[in-house]
Formats: sequence, C-alpha cells, structure tokens
Amino acid sequence: MRVLGIDPGLQNMGWGVIELDGPRLRHIANGVVHSDKGELGDRLLRLYRGLCAVIIAHAPSAAAVEQTFVNKDAVGTLKLGQARGIALLAPAEAGLEIGEYAPNAVKKAVVGVGHAGKEQVQHMVRHQLPGVVFESADAADALAIAICHAHHLQSRSIRIKVRA
Amino acid sequence: MRVLGIDPGLQNMGWGVIELDGPRLRHIANGVVHSDKGELGDRLLRLYRGLCAVIIAHAPSAAAVEQTFVNKDAVGTLKLGQARGIALLAPAEAGLEIGEYAPNAVKKAVVGVGHAGKEQVQHMVRHQLPGVVFESADAADALAIAICHAHHLQSRSIRIKVRA
Repeated sequence: MRVLGIDPGLQNMGWGVIELDGPRLRHIANGVVHSDKGELGDRLLRLYRGLCAVIIAHAPSAAAVEQTFVNKDAVGTLKLGQARGIALLAPAEAGLEIGEYAPNAVKKAVVGVGHAGKEQVQHMVRHQLPGVVFESADAADALAIAICHAHHLQSRSIRIKVRA
Repeated sequence: MRVLGIDPGLQNMGWGVIELDGPRLRHIANGVVHSDKGELGDRLLRLYRGLCAVIIAHAPSAAAVEQTFVNKDAVGTLKLGQARGIALLAPAEAGLEIGEYAPNAVKKAVVGVGHAGKEQVQHMVRHQLPGVVFESADAADALAIAICHAHHLQSRSIRIKVRA
C-alpha cells in the first residue's frame, strides 16, 4: 500500500510517496510542484496538473494533507486555502481516502513530541526512510505527513486484527 | 461572447452565464452548486465537477470570480480560500481568461456605487438581464460579477476601436 503526503502551498506544493510493507516503511519518491509566477488561475492549474501527474506516476491508494496552520495574516490564509483546495481535490478526484493532520500531530507521530523543530523532523524522516534524499524542506514535510498517516493506518490495521 | 461569473463559497457556489451582443447583455443561465455535507475533499470535488459541467453546458469564453472578502474569521477565510481555489481552477482548465473583481467593484459596475445593498444589486441585475429569474442570492451575485466583467470587456473593446 502506498501513501501520498502533501504539504500545501501556493508557491511550493511539497509531496512525498511512501510504501507500507507490514510494519516497515519504504521511500518511493518526493518532490515539489512549483507555481510562483503568472495569473492565479494558471498557478492553481499548474499545481493541480502536477499533483495529478504524481498520482498517476506513483499510484498511491491513500493520501494525507496537512491541516493548514491558520495564522493571523488573512491574505496569507486565503492564499494557502486556495492551494489547499487543490491539494484536496487531486486525490479526491482519484478516489483516494484523505487523512488530514494538524502540524503538531505530524510532529508527534514522526518525532514523538508535538513541538519538534524542522531539523528533528527531517532527522526522523531519514531514520524511518533509509536512503531518502529530500528535494526540499517542503518535500520532507510531505513525507512526514505520509509517515503520520501510515502510522495511523498501521494502528487501525492492528486494531482490526486484535478484534478479529 | 459568453461570460461566466462565479461567486465562490464552500457550501454554495453561485454561477451565472450571460451573453454579450454588442452593447446589450442577455441572460443565459444561473444556478448554484451545493456541497454542504461529507469529507472536505469530496465537497471540493463536487464543486469542481459542478463548475466543469456548467462550462461544458454553456460554453463561456471568459470567466470572472469575485475576490473573496477577507474577513476576520481565519477559519472562514480558509474555507472560502479552498472553495475559491476550485472556482479559479475550473475555468483555468478550460482555457478561459479569468477576471477578478472585489465586491465593491462589482457593485459599482452594476449599481453605480460601491456600497450598494444586496437588493439594489439584484434590482439592477434584473434591469440589465430582462426576464431573469435567480435560482438564489448566490446565483444573483454571480450574474452581477459576470455583468461587471462584461462591462470591462465592452469598454476594452471600445478603447481598441477608438485606437484603430
């Protein structure tokens, strides 16, 4: 089973795909869809097409998107919201179930504490996905989101087995 | 030439299509894509498919989307942003040029003053599109946005003629 993690952003949409092999995780691919110039509609279209291409290329069967941090800057929140709409649409259109996780939940799942720094998160992502090379910090964040969702799916599967 | 106006909203996405016939305007259709229940990804997908269906059915050659009012409620701004991302994506994917107008610019174009009330706007939309029946207030707003963009296109065309 493959999980796609997405870190939404209008300029840089980070993505990462991992594979669950029983209790183990394996890195498949990571990258960023860039969209920093042009009309807003065209920028969103670039993000959408980029994510659709990732889904076609790596065939994930589940997706997870970071719950955007609602900051005090309304203009920034609106921009992020527009990008996040695309980040949810692409996997929904592919029929994937989508998990949503707050940044602190992602950090807690990957590092063990909710207030870990970026470097700690990247260190633990490298530890859990041996050999991974990040295309950028946004791609590393996206892999962390995918790992968070993988843990969630694994614990759900264990719960189901215990019940059976 | 047909113009599609869109009033973005996560629960109710208003849309309206008008036709420019020289200096005159004609109502073609208006409606609302509803998406008030379910997972966020599925709700956005419903909005996207609804708008794509409108574009296929009425074949507009231009689109206009209201510039979302950035209010003080960050959660509301984020939701609106997500819906607005879809409102921009659908026409961009169809290759339409997209105009963006602030609510006050729309009111000024339709009524003549930037601080007109909803009823005044609806009255003037009825006046400019004889025989129109609104599916809802959101659809009426969408028609107002389309009229605003039509005026913009007409004045651009007059400027081009004067120069020629």
